[in-house]
Formats: sequence, structure tokens, C-alpha cells
Amino acid sequence: MSENPKMKVAIVGASGYSGVCLLGLLLAHPEVEILALCGSSQVGESIESIYPRLRGLGLPQITAFSELDLTKIDILFTATPNGFVREHFSSILTSGVRLIDLSADLRFDSGSEVAYGLSEWNRVGIESAPAIANPGCYPTASLLALLPLLEAGLVDLSRTIIIDAKSGVTGAGRQAEKSLLFGDLAEDFYAYKPLSHRHTPEIELYLSRFGGAPEDFALRFTPHLLPVKRGILASIHFRPSTSDLGVLQGCLLAKYSAEQFVDVLVGEALPRLSNVRHTNFAQIWVGYDPRTGEALLLSAIDNLMKGAAGQAVQNFNIMFGFPEALGLAGHSVLALG
Amino acid sequence: MSENPKMKVAIVGASGYSGVCLLGLLLAHPEVEILALCGSSQVGESIESIYPRLRGLGLPQITAFSELDLTKIDILFTATPNGFVREHFSSILTSGVRLIDLSADLRFDSGSEVAYGLSEWNRVGIESAPAIANPGCYPTASLLALLPLLEAGLVDLSRTIIIDAKSGVTGAGRQAEKSLLFGDLAEDFYAYKPLSHRHTPEIELYLSRFGGAPEDFALRFTPHLLPVKRGILASIHFRPSTSDLGVLQGCLLAKYSAEQFVDVLVGEALPRLSNVRHTNFAQIWVGYDPRTGEALLLSAIDNLMKGAAGQAVQNFNIMFGFPEALGLAGHSVLALG
Amino acid sequence: MSENPKMKVAIVGASGYSGVCLLGLLLAHPEVEILALCGSSQVGESIESIYPRLRGLGLPQITAFSELDLTKIDILFTATPNGFVREHFSSILTSGVRLIDLSADLRFDSGSEVAYGLSEWNRVGIESAPAIANPGCYPTASLLALLPLLEAGLVDLSRTIIIDAKSGVTGAGRQAEKSLLFGDLAEDFYAYKPLSHRHTPEIELYLSRFGGAPEDFALRFTPHLLPVKRGILASIHFRPSTSDLGVLQGCLLAKYSAEQFVDVLVGEALPRLSNVRHTNFAQIWVGYDPRTGEALLLSAIDNLMKGAAGQAVQNFNIMFGFPEALGLAGHSVLALG
Amino acid sequence: MSENPKMKVAIVGASGYSGVCLLGLLLAHPEVEILALCGSSQVGESIESIYPRLRGLGLPQITAFSELDLTKIDILFTATPNGFVREHFSSILTSGVRLIDLSADLRFDSGSEVAYGLSEWNRVGIESAPAIANPGCYPTASLLALLPLLEAGLVDLSRTIIIDAKSGVTGAGRQAEKSLLFGDLAEDFYAYKPLSHRHTPEIELYLSRFGGAPEDFALRFTPHLLPVKRGILASIHFRPSTSDLGVLQGCLLAKYSAEQFVDVLVGEALPRLSNVRHTNFAQIWVGYDPRTGEALLLSAIDNLMKGAAGQAVQNFNIMFGFPEALGLAGHSVLALG
Repeated sequence: MSENPKMKVAIVGASGYSGVCLLGLLLAHPEVEILALCGSSQVGESIESIYPRLRGLGLPQITAFSELDLTKIDILFTATPNGFVREHFSSILTSGVRLIDLSADLRFDSGSEVAYGLSEWNRVGIESAPAIANPGCYPTASLLALLPLLEAGLVDLSRTIIIDAKSGVTGAGRQAEKSLLFGDLAEDFYAYKPLSHRHTPEIELYLSRFGGAPEDFALRFTPHLLPVKRGILASIHFRPSTSDLGVLQGCLLAKYSAEQFVDVLVGEALPRLSNVRHTNFAQIWVGYDPRTGEALLLSAIDNLMKGAAGQAVQNFNIMFGFPEALGLAGHSVLALG
Repeated sequence: MSENPKMKVAIVGASGYSGVCLLGLLLAHPEVEILALCGSSQVGESIESIYPRLRGLGLPQITAFSELDLTKIDILFTATPNGFVREHFSSILTSGVRLIDLSADLRFDSGSEVAYGLSEWNRVGIESAPAIANPGCYPTASLLALLPLLEAGLVDLSRTIIIDAKSGVTGAGRQAEKSLLFGDLAEDFYAYKPLSHRHTPEIELYLSRFGGAPEDFALRFTPHLLPVKRGILASIHFRPSTSDLGVLQGCLLAKYSAEQFVDVLVGEALPRLSNVRHTNFAQIWVGYDPRTGEALLLSAIDNLMKGAAGQAVQNFNIMFGFPEALGLAGHSVLALG
Repeated sequence: MSENPKMKVAIVGASGYSGVCLLGLLLAHPEVEILALCGSSQVGESIESIYPRLRGLGLPQITAFSELDLTKIDILFTATPNGFVREHFSSILTSGVRLIDLSADLRFDSGSEVAYGLSEWNRVGIESAPAIANPGCYPTASLLALLPLLEAGLVDLSRTIIIDAKSGVTGAGRQAEKSLLFGDLAEDFYAYKPLSHRHTPEIELYLSRFGGAPEDFALRFTPHLLPVKRGILASIHFRPSTSDLGVLQGCLLAKYSAEQFVDVLVGEALPRLSNVRHTNFAQIWVGYDPRTGEALLLSAIDNLMKGAAGQAVQNFNIMFGFPEALGLAGHSVLALG
Repeated sequence: MSENPKMKVAIVGASGYSGVCLLGLLLAHPEVEILALCGSSQVGESIESIYPRLRGLGLPQITAFSELDLTKIDILFTATPNGFVREHFSSILTSGVRLIDLSADLRFDSGSEVAYGLSEWNRVGIESAPAIANPGCYPTASLLALLPLLEAGLVDLSRTIIIDAKSGVTGAGRQAEKSLLFGDLAEDFYAYKPLSHRHTPEIELYLSRFGGAPEDFALRFTPHLLPVKRGILASIHFRPSTSDLGVLQGCLLAKYSAEQFVDVLVGEALPRLSNVRHTNFAQIWVGYDPRTGEALLLSAIDNLMKGAAGQAVQNFNIMFGFPEALGLAGHSVLALG
């Protein structure tokens, strides 16, 4: 591989939590050369002044996006506030550069221009699309767990699926808001937007598109804010159409046993944030309660990795024909302890 | 009140998290005199050696329970490992001392000797019973939220009630276990015993006894461990028999508007741990999702207060005819900030 | 006491961390009636909308300070950004209302108008002064530990006193700044302004005024930010003029044995944040290292209590002749567990 | 490199915090093959049952050390309780296997058999010694900062050096002790063994051996326990023999500018745990206070990486002639965000 020229990359929004996580991954990626870092408030500064551990790596200074020559790069990553990509989408497409957008701007698009970047479920689309809408963190955790069962007809859709999800604080981005202060959040926990979170329709749409749920399908999604930096655990309550736990487990195993980044747990160990933190792994577990006839899915990811930057790199690898775990595999064992 | 002699109190198990919380409350209670502290491993030590802020209060040394003369005290509080009270129950009853047990030993008893100490739902029973089974923390949060709606027939019991509950670490007690170490739990989150927690039958039993649910009633209860010291949030998903949110809210308000320790939120504010921490308050909120026809109850308590020691003191006040908030009211405003 | 009319109180800045802690204390104080809450950004709102646990207490809405009739109140508490009290000081004094200022504005004043509110060291001044400059949190922890030894000549001033202090996050106030976000601070720790913190001259000034240090006296003060909500631990390294630990301990005990809120530890227990959290206590310990001839003072307080609101109430009690622990004593045992 | 056979490695004590961190590093190391994992309490179990993210990597089951054939491996890593290596040292040496010991057992040895593994200060010794005593975490942070200045004569040894150090909880190991429970440590902070920590003589010994301090040299070392998982910040107060900050900075830069893992900060950024977490980097900063004539060194490391497992791998690379950052460099940019 190393004889070919590296892919030329620009990142817009590298100073946020998922942006800098992405930058870290791309710096360690053997097929990537970082050509530009773009931002808004920090134009002219160096990213090292915000993240000193990036010193000495020869990173470019932060420039305005308007100064970026899109024809000089192979791939543009955007980890921007919602709205930015929508505003610049046509000029990006016109330039011919390929795009992986970590914001929510393109996630409801359809047609040939945008592929939804849920890696394990849309590889063909991702390979060829000009632009990738990288999934939201809650949708990634939810869809990976539900889609195999839904596709296999193992979910009784006459009962409402209930996703009770919990996310670490970096999921809310790096905004200067009092509600996100350490003094407010430490030792606290609460549900927010419990009836109307914007990720609900995203989950519903792709349960329909990829899993065959009816188009007017509706589920309950309740997010909560955890006093941890990173990680999502989704506890998904549903009524299965079988009372055979082995069938539910077998469905998940059949779908994911060949996947490098989805780990179906069938023994005593349960998904937990510490098992996936700083990795691109999802951990999924399913249980069945014969007393009530209900089932429970537990799904854990690192919101900044499989829920954002890690999956973006996985999609980048798919787009350009690199091994899917290139630059990501080591993470499965790092950061232990 | 102050002319009458104070109630003579003994506490067994004062060095655990709920035991010392109880001790703190009783020390501040104007009608209580603490006569004895009993323990097992720390006999002969002073409680001050474990909790230095208790220095200088003239507290008795920790003695063995076997040395306690039950005829000298008016009320015995037990914050002991499960099994202790079961073993000593007949001798305690015979002595004539009244008992408030914070363990799980008596929670499934019926008959005239034991009253279940869910204060707002069993005052008559609590006033007269020789022994009180103080409710578990998860059952307290769950029952307070569900009982009014169940009693009013507003819960569709043909669908399974799903309690997705999250508890701070002190709910697991002060055991020297690797799984409870700071190094293991900080920045982590997970579900545990997701299909078979021992609190499930307790919740079911009292939804039946107090709320009129069928005896063979079964629900789903999934607990999770939060990386915070104290607090429980229960997110309760159920199908209401009405689509009128006002009816659901009105039912909760009607039940609790005269209660000092249950706060029904009907505006924008949602229950959160920080709102109830170090207080005996429960906060309850109900929402309705017209898209799915499902409802959501959020219920927050401090697991050591309304979920253990606070409710024990509330029950003590009921038993002995003191104002129900005596020694507890100040907590509603303390520990702010 | 209860036959006299209560003291009429106004608080400016009640929505910050120390402001709302003060509000909680004053609500529980038997000799206080809260007449007005003033703010800037939240005029017209209710404090309950920010702190729901304050619901139902009949608190006044937040009004502008300019609308406050100072002649109607007995005592004004200001928990405002630095600069506010300086701007309004002459009009406050002219009105005849007494003032307890929790900001830094008056801490360097001298003369008859302002007394420095380090309760245990300036009771006579506090009783009679029109205005109290409530000490900073770091100075409170540092001065309480050092002053007795300095006054007794037990500190070798030819060597530099080194205060290595660590504070919880609420010490920085409730500002919407990225550097104070949970996502930035959790699992982190660092020194800030290590050579030039504004509290340094405050500590030096009162070591001189109260402890007899030379006027040109200089010490080293290095603050660090702890990932906890509340609490300060100051580790104070100094060279004693004696090698007899008993003399050092005896000096602290002699000064503080009759004090209700300063606890000198001489056994195995060491000061820690959990021992003083939510209380008005300071814990002080001194050790001597014969290998080096150096001594170490450890001093722990809750930065919002003895370091701000608690000491403000203590000073209020001193000013108006109430028992010094009125409204504060219960805190020594609450919030245990 | 890849044509040579990989180094055959055994780890004793892989389930503790530093042991599993070491295992993660060695799994990602291109020149390592893990042949055996030894433990005591978990013999016969798989390491995956404790750390599920290690599933699927084909790791050997945990065996007893007594069953390990030392002649089959090239290098033995021991992350064991103190005492284990002392007991087995002669048999290990006799077998001819090389040893890197992360415990404290060999740190005070001298002679030809053991080299102290402070990588940047003892490369020649490390290359040839049969056994490496990997330094303690506090000594690593302290020595890296102090040694260059001491060696250059820039520390006034007539005044006592004061190391005020703070460590995350994993520094205490993974012991089932009540004092290390989340419920006890969250929101807490305190000094422990403030006058007699066992790391004090280790620091003194190597300031003497490597830095030229007198043999009877004594300093003050006070450790504190931080409520974070990993990271050490040492704040080192000393009297410099120069008042020229540039000289102090220049000394550090001269020593470390060619080092890959020691980062001397000379601008506005200060060392903080988040800058070094999950990396093998040390960050060092020096400041001078002209008011007092005192200087301050700040030194940050990850206690499990540069303070334990990372430095062990760095020493392994030195021992066997691999590039010193092999398997470690990527960490400088990972785990950002």
C-alpha cells in the first residue's frame, strides 16, 4: 500500500470533541496526509494551542473554510455545527471532492448523492457515494442492535419499541453552556427531550430503509445525560415474535460474526461503557424474560468513536478500498486499565 | 413537644452508607436520643473513627447486638445485611420494642406484625404495626410514580410496564468488592441483573396490594449502575388508557398535592438527581407521546434518603405521632449549589 | 428569640453556586425573612425555575438591584461578580443597611467601614462594622491553619511558606466557559495561575494584619482545579521554629478547642473533603518531618460553606448577636453517607 | 524487522490495572508474541472473562507462575504485588530470561544484575542488565522534572525540595478495599501517608545516583489521592540557584529536546492530566516567582503509561534494540477528545 500517494484530507471543525478525536485517528492512519484544518472561531491559531499533545506533529494552522481549495484534496471531513454542510453542499459536490459529514445535515437525504454511513449496513452505498452522512451516535447504537432482529421478523411491531438511551457528555458537543458545566453535571443524571429528541426520526427512517419497518413506523426514544465523558448505552425494550432466546442470539451472531467491530455477547458479560471506550467496537447483548414475554437489547458504543469519528474512518476505508479496520484495529486493546 | 422524654433509639449497622445517613438524620431529630450503635466487625470502635465529622457528639461506642437490652429502647433501626433481621425477628418482637428495618428481610411479609413502609401509601398500617419493612430504593421510586395511575385505572395492563432504572453506587452498599472500586466504575455505566433483580417482585407485590394490580401481575425491571454516589432515576414506560396528558397529570397532582415529600412536576423542569440529592423528596413527571400512544414516567429520589434513611425517619414520625417532616424538612433547601 | 421580628434580608446574585448555597442556609435560618432576590440576567424570573427544589417556598421573584429599597431591609448579602459592590458601595453605606459581601471587592479595604469576615479572628470587628468583606475560599483555608502558628512565632519566616491548594470546580463560579465544561474537566487535574493567583495578596495581607507577619511578607501560593463539585484542601509546607510536634499541635488546639467550626485533628484521621462537605467546618492537621525539619499543615473546608456562604451566615450571626452556629450546626451531621 | 522471529513474552499479574495496560500495549507491539499470562487467584480463567474487549485475540489462559517454563520465553514482565519478584528472583536470573519488574521489589538494588528503568536517564544500564526495576509512578514524574536541574546545579540544596504530588486511583492498584470504593472516593480528595510514603526514599536515591545529590539527601514528599482513574501531577517547589527563568527552561530543553516522550512546555500551556492520559508522554513546566525567589516545577504523566506499563515497553525496546517508541508512538494522538 505504501507506494501509492496518501489520501489528502481536510477536516472542518477539528477542535470539537468528535473533530479532535477524528484528527487523532487520521494522524495515526497510514494512508492519510492531513492537508488542512478549517474552523470558524479559531482561524489563524494552531490546533496545538488547544490540544498541546498535538505539538510537534507539523499540523497546519486553522484556516477559514472559504480559503480551502477543494480540488487539492481527496476527502473532506466535516465535524461542524448543523447547517454548515447544508449551506456548502452544492459547492462541495461540484468540486468533485468526496465528503464524510459527521453533522446531522445529510442524514435524511435520499437519492444517489448521499449514502447513510452505517458501515455494516450500507457498504455498497458507501463505496460509491459522493457524500456520506455519518450516523448520529444514538442511531448507531440503536440501529446496530435492532436491525438484524427487525429484518428477520423477530420484532413484534404491534407493540412499541422503547429505546431508553444514556449518553456521556461529549455527545452534546463542546458548547459553552451553563447546563454543560462540570459544577452542574457532576453527580447528576436526567432525561432530556424525553418525548421529542431529533434522533428519533433518524432511527425510525433507517429501521424502515434497512430493516423493512413500515414507513409510518414510530418508536419511543428517551435519551438521558450521563456524568461521564464518553460512551452510550442503549437499553432497548421490545416484544419479540419468538420466545426462544437462542433464535434471537443466533440472529445477531449470524449477522455480525464476521464483523470486526460488532461484538455480540452471549455469555455472562454484559455491554458496558468501559468495554468499548476509545474503541470502534459496538457490544450487543440480547435477553428474553419469559415472565413477561418481553426482550431486552443492550448496546454499547463509544459515542466519539463508533458513534462519530471511528465510524467516519471506517467509512473512509470503505470508500477508498482500504482494509476496513485500517487505523482502527489497535484501539481494541489500547486504553485498557 | 420538648417536655416529653425523647425516644430512645438504637441503630444496628450504622457504618454503612444508609446506616450513617440515618444516624445523621436521627442526630438532628429533636425528639430522638441515640442510646446504642450496634455492628459486627467494628465492635469496640467508635463511629467517629470511620466518620470523623461525628467527633464530639458523645455518641456511644459500637457494641455487639447481643449485648443490647431491647427493653431499654423505644425503637430499633436495622440497616443490616439481608438475613440479620429474619434471624432475630422473634426475639425483637417479643421484647416489645418497635422496629424499622431498612434491609429486605421483611418486605414480603404480610399479616399484622409488619407494615410496608411506603409512607404516603400506608400511614394507617405504619402507625400501628410493631415492625416496619422500609421499602427498597428502586421500589420507592417506582411505586410512588406508578401507584396513583394504576389505582385510577390509567395504566393499560395488557401491555407490559417497563421500568428502566438507574442508581448511584451507594445503592449497592459499602462492600469491599473489586466491582465497586472507583478505578472500575468511574466513567463507566452498565445494566446489571437486567432480567432478574430481586426488587422486581417487591415492586409487583405492592403494585398489587396498594394499586390493585392482579396478583399474577408481572413487569419488566432493568437496573443500571450510575457513576454517582447517590440518587435514583426511574424511567417508566407504560401504555396509558387515556391519551389526555392532563388526566395523567391531574391524577398525580390529586394524589400528591398535599404531600410534603412528593413533588409532581408539570412544567418544563424534569426530575434530576441534583434536585433531590440529600433530601427526602421524590420528583415525579409524566409525559405522553401521541405518535406512539405511550406514556413515560420519570421519578427521581435520593436512594439514601427517600429510598432508605429519610423514609425510615418519616415512618418513625408516623409511628410515634410526630409531624411527618420533623427532622427532615430542612433538607429540602440544604445542600444546594 | 422567636418573639422578636425576624431580620429582613436581600440577596444579590442568588443564582450562582455560592449565592444559592447562601439562599438555602438563610431559608433554614430561624431568624431570617427573605425579602428580595436581586439578579441581573434573570430579572422577572423565579429562582425556582433554575432550582426546582425551591418550589413552594414563596420566594420573591428576581428583581433588579436598582429597584431594591435598601431602607426596608436589615442586611444585604452580595454574591456578585467582582466590581458590583465597589460600584454601589457608597449608596449601600449611605442607606444604613448592613452588608456582607461575598465577592472580592472589599477584601483589601481598611478603616472603620469594612471588617474582614474571618469569623474566628475578627469577631469584634465583625460585630460593629457596617460592611463585612467575606474572605475568599482559599484564604479561609490557608489563614485558619497558618495564623495560630504564625502568631505564636512557630513559623520560621526566613523560609518561604508554600501553599499548594486544590479546589473543587464551584470555586470558579457558574460561568459559561468551555474550560469549565464537564467534558473538559472530568478525569482531569491541573495547576492554574501557579505564580500569580489573586488570592495570594489576600492571604499575605491577613497573615500580616492578624498574625503579625511583616508587611512586605511574601509567600508562594499555587492553586489547582479538582474534578469535584465542592471542597478545598490546602497543603501548606513551612519550616517550623520548633521540632516538637506537640508544640505545634498544642498551639492549634489552644486556639481552636473552644471553636464550634474549626476541628483540629491530632489522631490518625486526616482532613479530607468528604469530612467537611456541606458543613461549615474546617479540619486542620499538622505534621512534622524530622528527616527534613519541615512541617506540613493540611486544611480542608467546603468552599461554598466555610469558604463562602456558611461563613457569611456565621458572620451574620456575629453581627446581630445570634448564637454563632444558628442555622449552621445541623450541617455537621447532615449529608453523611 | 518483521523477518526476525518475534520476542516471546510472559506477563505475571496481567489482570491488575497496570498489568492489563501492559497487555494492551504488548498486543499492539509489532515485535511481540504473548506466550503466557500468569496469575494467582484466576488460574484457569481467561483474561477475556475480566476484560471482554480482549475477546477473539487468541490470548492464552491464565496459568500459575510455577507452571511457566522460563527457558521458552525471551522476556518476563511482572506486574505483581510487592514481594513476588524478590521471592523468585534467583530462579528467574538463573533461567537466563530477562526481566522487567513493575513492582517495587528491585528498585533499591544495586550492582550489575538490576538496572533502574528510568528510560531517559539509564539507557546504557537498561540495554545490558538482566533485570530492570521499572520505576514507581511518583518517582518517574518527580525524577524526570528534577534531575536535569539538579545535575546542572540549579537547585539550592540548602533548602528542602517539596514534592506535592497527586495521583489517580489506579495508582493504588486493584485491591478490594473499602477505602478505594467509588462511594468513598467520588467527590473526595485527601493527602495520605503525608510524611512517610514508601516512594520518598526511591526518589531520594535516584536524585543522588543520577543527579549527584548527596547520599544523605532528604526531601519532603506528600502524595494525595485524586478522584480520577489515571494520571499524576507532581507540583515540585524548590529554591533555584538562579533567578533567570530562561536558564531553568534552557536546562530542561537541552536535556529533553531530543527525547520523544518528554515534552517541556515553555509557553502558556501548563501540564495537565488530559494532555498525557493514555500516552507515554511526560509534560514538564518550570516557573520562577521573583517575589519569593522560589521556583515551581509541574510534571504530568499517566501513572499507568509512563508511570508503569508504557515505560516498561519503552525499556523493553531499549533492551532489545528496537526503536524506542515502537508500539508507543501512536498513543500520543489517540484517545483525544
